[in-house]
Amino acid sequence: MLSAEIIAVGSELLTPERTDTNSLWLTEKLMNIGVEVKLKTIVGDDEARLEETIRDALKRSDIVVTTGGLGPTEDDVTRNVSARAAGRGVVYHDEIEAHLRERFRQWGREMPEINKRQAYVIEGATILPNPNGSAVGMLLNDDGKFLVVLPGPPREMQPMFENHVLDILKTVSGNVSVVRRVLRVSGFGESALDELISPIYKKYETIQTSILFNRSEVEIHLSASAKSEAESDAIIDELVGKLAEVLGLALFATNGETMEEVVGGLLRDRKQTLSVAESCTGGLIGMRLTDVAGSSSYFMEGVVAYSNDAKIRTLGVSEETLAQYGAVSSQTAEAMADGMRRRAGTDYAISVTGIAGPDGGSEDKPVGTVYVGYADKNGTKFLHMTLPGDRYLIRWRSSQAALDYLRRRILKTS
Amino acid sequence: MLSAEIIAVGSELLTPERTDTNSLWLTEKLMNIGVEVKLKTIVGDDEARLEETIRDALKRSDIVVTTGGLGPTEDDVTRNVSARAAGRGVVYHDEIEAHLRERFRQWGREMPEINKRQAYVIEGATILPNPNGSAVGMLLNDDGKFLVVLPGPPREMQPMFENHVLDILKTVSGNVSVVRRVLRVSGFGESALDELISPIYKKYETIQTSILFNRSEVEIHLSASAKSEAESDAIIDELVGKLAEVLGLALFATNGETMEEVVGGLLRDRKQTLSVAESCTGGLIGMRLTDVAGSSSYFMEGVVAYSNDAKIRTLGVSEETLAQYGAVSSQTAEAMADGMRRRAGTDYAISVTGIAGPDGGSEDKPVGTVYVGYADKNGTKFLHMTLPGDRYLIRWRSSQAALDYLRRRILKTS
Repeated sequence: MLSAEIIAVGSELLTPERTDTNSLWLTEKLMNIGVEVKLKTIVGDDEARLEETIRDALKRSDIVVTTGGLGPTEDDVTRNVSARAAGRGVVYHDEIEAHLRERFRQWGREMPEINKRQAYVIEGATILPNPNGSAVGMLLNDDGKFLVVLPGPPREMQPMFENHVLDILKTVSGNVSVVRRVLRVSGFGESALDELISPIYKKYETIQTSILFNRSEVEIHLSASAKSEAESDAIIDELVGKLAEVLGLALFATNGETMEEVVGGLLRDRKQTLSVAESCTGGLIGMRLTDVAGSSSYFMEGVVAYSNDAKIRTLGVSEETLAQYGAVSSQTAEAMADGMRRRAGTDYAISVTGIAGPDGGSEDKPVGTVYVGYADKNGTKFLHMTLPGDRYLIRWRSSQAALDYLRRRILKTS
Repeated sequence: MLSAEIIAVGSELLTPERTDTNSLWLTEKLMNIGVEVKLKTIVGDDEARLEETIRDALKRSDIVVTTGGLGPTEDDVTRNVSARAAGRGVVYHDEIEAHLRERFRQWGREMPEINKRQAYVIEGATILPNPNGSAVGMLLNDDGKFLVVLPGPPREMQPMFENHVLDILKTVSGNVSVVRRVLRVSGFGESALDELISPIYKKYETIQTSILFNRSEVEIHLSASAKSEAESDAIIDELVGKLAEVLGLALFATNGETMEEVVGGLLRDRKQTLSVAESCTGGLIGMRLTDVAGSSSYFMEGVVAYSNDAKIRTLGVSEETLAQYGAVSSQTAEAMADGMRRRAGTDYAISVTGIAGPDGGSEDKPVGTVYVGYADKNGTKFLHMTLPGDRYLIRWRSSQAALDYLRRRILKTS
């Protein structure tokens, strides 16, 4: 397997606010052609460190990809430094300058002289055109080692890599086709899931399996590498089928879908509708559902009933229920779902009420106490949980639990 | 200024799904004591590459911090490799083993023999205790260069660094106190803002100023380094005062607050209440407002009126308004805000209706067309925008515009 290193260039990537994310996208593309990323570096606009980094990377790895530092200003040092690190000079390309002048003319502007720096290319390198910006990229094949120099903005970097680099590297790596698949499972912890499924996936030695916990669900990452995509797909499909058998309803996504996409798909297929009554999640469930383009065909209405008055007024929860059981109770959750469903006239309604913290907990109902309510034509149900985490996580996990509860009900009742 | 490098260790950090985030936290802590992070590396559980990385970093920089790779398994190579890179051996510490055995006993378990590996420490290094996990950290002062070896989980790494490393490095860096402040500005582009304020901030040579665009607002990052925190604070306060004069209402946060915190603070101070009617944002505004702990004192109710029926039924928008002007119109936005305020009986209501895409646009009303509605006791108003971006960004920017409009109205009317 070929090895790669990715080097992100730019002092802004060394601040507490930002970091490199281009490498995540690149890692995925490289994995898909059977290239393994072994090291990533983030370096500022610092010539000495950048040169050393590129030179070391070229010694250690088959493919070195840099992103950023190709702009026209003095800070942008990647062009010259990468040439130096590869032991080459730079060559001025008149046709790049002409092209840049033309670009600027089309915007009705004169090209600033400073942009001439962008017409220099590493000696012997292939020029990678950039329809979305002024910086061309470069690909240098140095005795079988590859140095790929890309611009930083994702909308310039990504098409350049896909259109001008990927096929070349794919050939170099032996044209393997790696297929990756993300499965998502609810209601399991990481170790319990691994215990259950490791006897199955361990039989598939050509598939790399890893299990990751992600806020409110466990993900199973599968990756198979074969001579064709169809072959990789087939072996993964086989394993997914066996996992689905033991996981049943817990397996909610077999191709990277989010919970809101899965629930949306079920409703769309069944031509059914949904409304949502939220208290502690404050609109998060509605936001997630409507993140999915086309959700207006099944999501009708949401109410964020944060105050008790709103629960009474808009959802028809009775004052007695609130007084007797409290706003955070199974009774209130069911009444919220029932009232929401009646108001919106939808097939289903779900509700959430709980204590997201940091304040508001009590001995009886500590922070993290959450009730999910559910209503359909047959009546109401509820789910009670005590969720770990801070305010953000409790709210997120509540929204996930409510959507998952709905999903399981839809699948059980239809 | 002292230079630092941060090395994150772990093969999971080289996948397309995850990356190192510990370094962001560490960068901030190091900046605050006047240490500049010059390079970051992410390396897998790969002994050769890790050793070379640490050795090179120690040559180039004053302080090298590693995170991760201190667990008890064979994959966890940082302990031995960092010793080798520093040209030292490791020493077995019986007291660490005893402590580990005691930890396991407290959980009612026997210590697995494998955990003995965690009792090895770099020769000559100070042991950094870890109350939150089994891996101790290490701090090696090698002739004035510092190698700091920390565990990967943030809840182990962060207290260890704060309690046992920070003060030592602060002394080394000359006890400077760097104060950082984030200001947030709405209604300006990056360059227009810089044009306006650069004549002001350039007079403050001891303050580092940088301007960053962040989804829907521009941030001004200020950082001052003086012998005391009070001194740094004073000079920053002075500059912030001058910036506030020219920016007026556009400057919405002077200490890193989010828009929802600022709006919440205004409502809380004035003991006023708010309700929100959302269409294209789908609950995002409610979610953001209720992200703030204590928001139940001013946020009463939200309605996600995604369907026209919901706009009519729950918000009292008239069928005529919808038929004549459409769901995405200033008239509908104002009617939504008005209906929401009447329903909830709040001091203010805001509403959003728009086209978030990718579908649903027309020549008249392209994707990104958004109307914000506003209602208070004096009547209704609206704001019309055409926002750039994808579905995610249009929704986010709509929510920000609505909250900002409310903020400006509150400040103008009271």
